[in-house]
Amino acid sequence: MGIKAVIFDAYGTLFDVYSVARLAETLFPGQGAKLAELWRDKQIEYSRLRTLSGQYRPFSQVTQDSLVFSLRKLRLDDSSPIVQRLVDQYGRLEVFPENAGALAELCELGLPLAILSNGDLPMLEPLLAQSGLGPYFTALLSADQVRRFKTAPEVYQLGPDTLGHAAAQMLFVSSNAWDACGARWFGYQSFWINRAGQPPEELGIAPDATGSSMRDVVAHVRSHAAASPQPPSHSERKDNE
Amino acid sequence: MGIKAVIFDAYGTLFDVYSVARLAETLFPGQGAKLAELWRDKQIEYSRLRTLSGQYRPFSQVTQDSLVFSLRKLRLDDSSPIVQRLVDQYGRLEVFPENAGALAELCELGLPLAILSNGDLPMLEPLLAQSGLGPYFTALLSADQVRRFKTAPEVYQLGPDTLGHAAAQMLFVSSNAWDACGARWFGYQSFWINRAGQPPEELGIAPDATGSSMRDVVAHVRSHAAASPQPPSHSERKDNE
Repeated sequence: MGIKAVIFDAYGTLFDVYSVARLAETLFPGQGAKLAELWRDKQIEYSRLRTLSGQYRPFSQVTQDSLVFSLRKLRLDDSSPIVQRLVDQYGRLEVFPENAGALAELCELGLPLAILSNGDLPMLEPLLAQSGLGPYFTALLSADQVRRFKTAPEVYQLGPDTLGHAAAQMLFVSSNAWDACGARWFGYQSFWINRAGQPPEELGIAPDATGSSMRDVVAHVRSHAAASPQPPSHSERKDNE
Repeated sequence: MGIKAVIFDAYGTLFDVYSVARLAETLFPGQGAKLAELWRDKQIEYSRLRTLSGQYRPFSQVTQDSLVFSLRKLRLDDSSPIVQRLVDQYGRLEVFPENAGALAELCELGLPLAILSNGDLPMLEPLLAQSGLGPYFTALLSADQVRRFKTAPEVYQLGPDTLGHAAAQMLFVSSNAWDACGARWFGYQSFWINRAGQPPEELGIAPDATGSSMRDVVAHVRSHAAASPQPPSHSERKDNE
């Protein structure tokens, strides 16, 4: 089915969450990568536990909590100034280098683009503003609106509700394999940007397509976009008769 | 409030899931511990994702799927005989050494003991049989009965439904910190056996008590058990008048 809109995950897909590792490495030489990885794992874990148990807190809180745990687990300084500096870095995550160009190309195809993120707006809006990516998107959808995190269906439902297309007519793009699978379970077409060359998840479902960067998303959308609303060609007219 | 029953998690609490590492190390020298850890992490992750997305499969399936992913991620042989040997080991997990003695002491206190596990009965029953722990328990409750995994409330609800006490009158015991927190969120009293000396989870809730082995659970229950149904003492009779 032709793609009528494209929805992007934010953290890990548009923004490189591991770019905090550089600051972490400055603060804790030799431990930056380890801290960044543990922090990210715990952040996702806490988001899922809180959703499973109906104990929602905004992603900004979850992000801070998971950082504190990670610092303690690695026996690093968990004092407030350290926590604050690292959390603040989440508002300055780097954009993957190819993303701005790729988003510009997707815009030229005339499809609406949206973001659907676990993040709450106080986290996402400044990040989007400083990254310069804001103008590419027609909607910024947050799990905070439904007080659950991915992969809860209520979160993915924000796409159809806001953009007015069925999930099956939209492409959901994520660098997180579990998110691309969750979106497929929900009913989206999905694209997994497998930046790290991971094996696919063994969840009994697969994304519709996989690539290694946002460039591959552009190629996929080009060949699967729904026809623009133009006068039907001769052959199409024949089909309608 | 006095404890009227004790409910135990199985994997990690009664049975040492990392005891598969020994077989893994035999099969893949130098990689056993890493494989066992990744396998366990993915097993839990898949159980949560499937619950969040309403895509339940029994824990035996989740356990096999997560093993296949882990073998591929570590670029190890993922052929059927290898997978089967490792999965079979889940039916022969070692019991933590102090557990049988501790369970015997708890039984002597006259409290009903139960198991509440993510595992399905085809996984749990043979394991319980070969471990010799079976006779200590009055109920074997499985997430499979409600087709969701922890920390979904429906799973924890099996305790009150089966044992006939309010969750607040029962102690839930787990070596998994997230499980002890999930049980507390649900309404149980909970005890975290922190075998590995981990920092507490930063989930805004804490188990009622923490110890380092099942011996500490016995001590806790001894001092918090509800009074046995005996003739009221003089002072208690006064309270009733």
